[in-house]
Amino acid sequence: AFVVYTADPHMNEYLPEQWKERAWLSGFTGSYGYMAVTQKAAGLWTDGRYFVQAARQLAGSGIHMYKEGFAKSYIDWLISHTKEGNKVAVNALATSHTHWIELEEKLKRHRRKLLDFPLLENVWINRPGKKQHPVFVHPLERAGELAVDKMKRIRKEMARRGATVHVLSSLDDVAWTLNLRGSDIAYNPVFIGYVIMERERTTLFIAPDQLTQEVRKALQDAAVQVRDYTNFYKSLRELKGESVWVSSQANQALVKTIAANNRLILRPPPGHLMKAIKNKVELKGFDTVMERDGVVMVHFLHWLLHRVGKEEMTEFSIGRKLLEFRRRAKNFRGESFPAIVGYRGNDALPHYRADRQSSNKVLPLGSILIDSGGQYLEGTTDLTRTVPLGEISDAFKEDYTLVMKAYLTLQEAKFPEGTTGSQIDALARLPLWKEGKDFNHGTGHGVGSFLNVHEGPQAIRKGKNATALQPGMVLSNEPGYYLENQYGIRHENLMKIILYKKTKWNAFYGFEPLTLCPFFKAPLLEELLTLDEKKTLNTYHHNVKERLSPHLDGEVKAWFLKLVEPL
Amino acid sequence: AFVVYTADPHMNEYLPEQWKERAWLSGFTGSYGYMAVTQKAAGLWTDGRYFVQAARQLAGSGIHMYKEGFAKSYIDWLISHTKEGNKVAVNALATSHTHWIELEEKLKRHRRKLLDFPLLENVWINRPGKKQHPVFVHPLERAGELAVDKMKRIRKEMARRGATVHVLSSLDDVAWTLNLRGSDIAYNPVFIGYVIMERERTTLFIAPDQLTQEVRKALQDAAVQVRDYTNFYKSLRELKGESVWVSSQANQALVKTIAANNRLILRPPPGHLMKAIKNKVELKGFDTVMERDGVVMVHFLHWLLHRVGKEEMTEFSIGRKLLEFRRRAKNFRGESFPAIVGYRGNDALPHYRADRQSSNKVLPLGSILIDSGGQYLEGTTDLTRTVPLGEISDAFKEDYTLVMKAYLTLQEAKFPEGTTGSQIDALARLPLWKEGKDFNHGTGHGVGSFLNVHEGPQAIRKGKNATALQPGMVLSNEPGYYLENQYGIRHENLMKIILYKKTKWNAFYGFEPLTLCPFFKAPLLEELLTLDEKKTLNTYHHNVKERLSPHLDGEVKAWFLKLVEPL
Repeated sequence: AFVVYTADPHMNEYLPEQWKERAWLSGFTGSYGYMAVTQKAAGLWTDGRYFVQAARQLAGSGIHMYKEGFAKSYIDWLISHTKEGNKVAVNALATSHTHWIELEEKLKRHRRKLLDFPLLENVWINRPGKKQHPVFVHPLERAGELAVDKMKRIRKEMARRGATVHVLSSLDDVAWTLNLRGSDIAYNPVFIGYVIMERERTTLFIAPDQLTQEVRKALQDAAVQVRDYTNFYKSLRELKGESVWVSSQANQALVKTIAANNRLILRPPPGHLMKAIKNKVELKGFDTVMERDGVVMVHFLHWLLHRVGKEEMTEFSIGRKLLEFRRRAKNFRGESFPAIVGYRGNDALPHYRADRQSSNKVLPLGSILIDSGGQYLEGTTDLTRTVPLGEISDAFKEDYTLVMKAYLTLQEAKFPEGTTGSQIDALARLPLWKEGKDFNHGTGHGVGSFLNVHEGPQAIRKGKNATALQPGMVLSNEPGYYLENQYGIRHENLMKIILYKKTKWNAFYGFEPLTLCPFFKAPLLEELLTLDEKKTLNTYHHNVKERLSPHLDGEVKAWFLKLVEPL
Repeated sequence: AFVVYTADPHMNEYLPEQWKERAWLSGFTGSYGYMAVTQKAAGLWTDGRYFVQAARQLAGSGIHMYKEGFAKSYIDWLISHTKEGNKVAVNALATSHTHWIELEEKLKRHRRKLLDFPLLENVWINRPGKKQHPVFVHPLERAGELAVDKMKRIRKEMARRGATVHVLSSLDDVAWTLNLRGSDIAYNPVFIGYVIMERERTTLFIAPDQLTQEVRKALQDAAVQVRDYTNFYKSLRELKGESVWVSSQANQALVKTIAANNRLILRPPPGHLMKAIKNKVELKGFDTVMERDGVVMVHFLHWLLHRVGKEEMTEFSIGRKLLEFRRRAKNFRGESFPAIVGYRGNDALPHYRADRQSSNKVLPLGSILIDSGGQYLEGTTDLTRTVPLGEISDAFKEDYTLVMKAYLTLQEAKFPEGTTGSQIDALARLPLWKEGKDFNHGTGHGVGSFLNVHEGPQAIRKGKNATALQPGMVLSNEPGYYLENQYGIRHENLMKIILYKKTKWNAFYGFEPLTLCPFFKAPLLEELLTLDEKKTLNTYHHNVKERLSPHLDGEVKAWFLKLVEPL
């Protein structure tokens, strides 16, 4: 048997074309899924976001769709479709070390063996080539810290943990550490490269033609050597007798190569937490792009609400229109993720992505959910507004208000030093839980500074997350409620963590919203909001008014000023 | 070197006299601590509850006190006080398997070896003998389920996990499974025994003279064989080729003996979760004893508030008085833990235990914290009231109100199936966190049914707890606030988990208070309470009135009726 995950050697959220092996093999193009294949059978596992799409795309292929969490696991499937002594192959380059270990152990228990073999290399004939785009410098006035200083901090952590070498394989780690950016991956302003940090030497492995003179100069200034990307595994093999710090999320080929002759230190990379705690310059960058993105959003929402019903529009075309508005903004470098524009039941699919062919027509009826964000040179944005387009039901209003309570409760939460996002997740959910409601996704994720819109290690979610929340971290606050085939509601702003109170015994932290864009007040049932909640929302809208008004004028401004009036 | 933990072969919370090895060796009598000793040096580690007491009791002994969490760990101490190749001994009978593994691995890494050796056996000459008290039957009308049916459920779980044998070593597991109770251990109505459950046979290992005719009959009815307690390890050694389910919290001697010839299944015992989910009869028992204990508390509080300043009283004597009141109640079998009566700064020590000699005089000034509970044949109680005795400060009133908000918030929380206590802990803390305050203990622990007042596996706390909260579980709700050397506040009731709402997608649960005793309203700053909070407290007091009034009369009743008037 063999297994194909949705992964590439750098464990990117969005895969480069040449690594879309599972999509090529199965025909299923969703962002999440993995396949197991034997001589006689093939199964594809995906989650609730994709049951409908996968069933459609797999129809007639002979590949059976398994609903993750509801059907048997792919590992059980593998056991029942193979015999003792059989071998299961994966491509270790596109399999995380964690996945490998889990699969290997379970197979071993049933006397099957796991092999590393790039089966598709000989099968996928017209596999696309690697796309390479020029890398560019993320300058000090936006990064706030020199690459040499970042590496100094990383080496200090390495020394503390007894590591003599640190290997960076996740692309945002590479980009953050070196103060470089690129466009090799959709939505993430990163480039394809590895870094090996030794005690005295740092080497970047990259296709040399991606480097401009400016980048070469910056790398020289940071004392970073450059080698061809294709030499990376050769260089790894040359490491001997070292203590090598690498993430357990790195690909298995990488981890195995290191483990052959060195001591492994499998821990989250030291740069993860450093990257998560934004410095003053980065936080100022967030403020800058929030104004810019807020102005875009106000213009876009004004257009949407004034043109709906007057011109033809679909979920897909609305997404394109929003991108058009953003494209006009200064230093805009692309969307930070594929915009989610959901209408008439599609808004009840938290990760819905409209396509040109099948997307719903949008009319001045009900509500539409729009979750989008931009990559700007100074920072990254991500916000969701649930927009009433016409008549809405009382049930919708109640749920819209409950989700607003959830959002406001989390925004106003305070917590002591050492608290994790898992601990405070319930604060946001309680207003919904009291009505027997909930939402089936995380409440908040970390956000990069002109980097990945989904960034660890912190998160606000039900599941375990051991990272303590700290001042300078940027997180989304995005509770929702989804009623199948009817409507979906989500209110999302980005927030930063700030120091709230320092006492003799402890420091307490709180949040401050970064995103600047009105929430729609019309659907709010005011009687369900407490005085404190109203005050919080009014304060937010007052701030949005102060910050965005100077950049607005005419009819749009007049319309905007009504939106941000206090309750 | 050698190490002495505070433990016995059954890992009891309260040790039988003959197992108080650490107290005997060190002179430090606190409930928490462990010692490491070499030829030249000795250290004792304890936590914040005992820094003052340990320093006093260790003075002049040559034993150095280490503050756990602030000083080096005992393992690091062992490494620095021994050499490569040295051996460290512990008594495996009084060391949990978890502790053993942790210590063994760390010692191994530094090339020291861990040995099992009962050093003190030859040193502690006048070691007390085992005290044995008659065991008695916990009848069906109080247990709600026959022992045979409990064992049927346990065997089903054993089969599911592939276990052929299950060994019970924790005394409340033994007592719960067999529907027996005893009084070998302080505060816990249990007896000293082990159980080995095989596929077809159950054997109780116990000192035979503890068994009455009635108990022998009950054991016969449940098809349980009896062997002498001293034969237990011999019987364990006779197990060969079995798959044995045992807790990783069991003592190391037990685990090692099993591991010699069998496959180990180290998991929490199947009975843990069954025991935690109380059946209808047990819940009715809780209701019964809450009325009884509530009446006791009302009489006690009436006495306290009317006699303070008029007769001499100390923290210690007040605790004795409360016990006197409880002793008069029907089916009272003893305190469920040593009562905590703290005054004038001692109330700021959450686990304070007054002793006869040094306890504070109590006057009609400030407030006193009283945390106590009873063991009754029908159930177990545990409640805390913070009692204003005289003039109290505005700061105290504010904190008293904040802790009340914390208590009420948790009592009113709702949460979906699958939620753990760790997830909802922050709900109780948020009102305090908003003022830069917190408390340094768990918010809620499980409670046994005429069994241990601290019972797992569920808990409401900051730390990790993986057990989902389920209807039928009984938990304490006990937020607090402690201002060093000034005052301490805690409001504690027991609650049961009930089904709140069943929707198409999920079940939601909530709490219902079990404890029946007024909270003092006088210190509450009403302006800090929301309308909902006031309503919740009024509803609680209304219920306390309905349930307790019929059992009260005269002056006490008149006084009580004022306490439970609505805000």
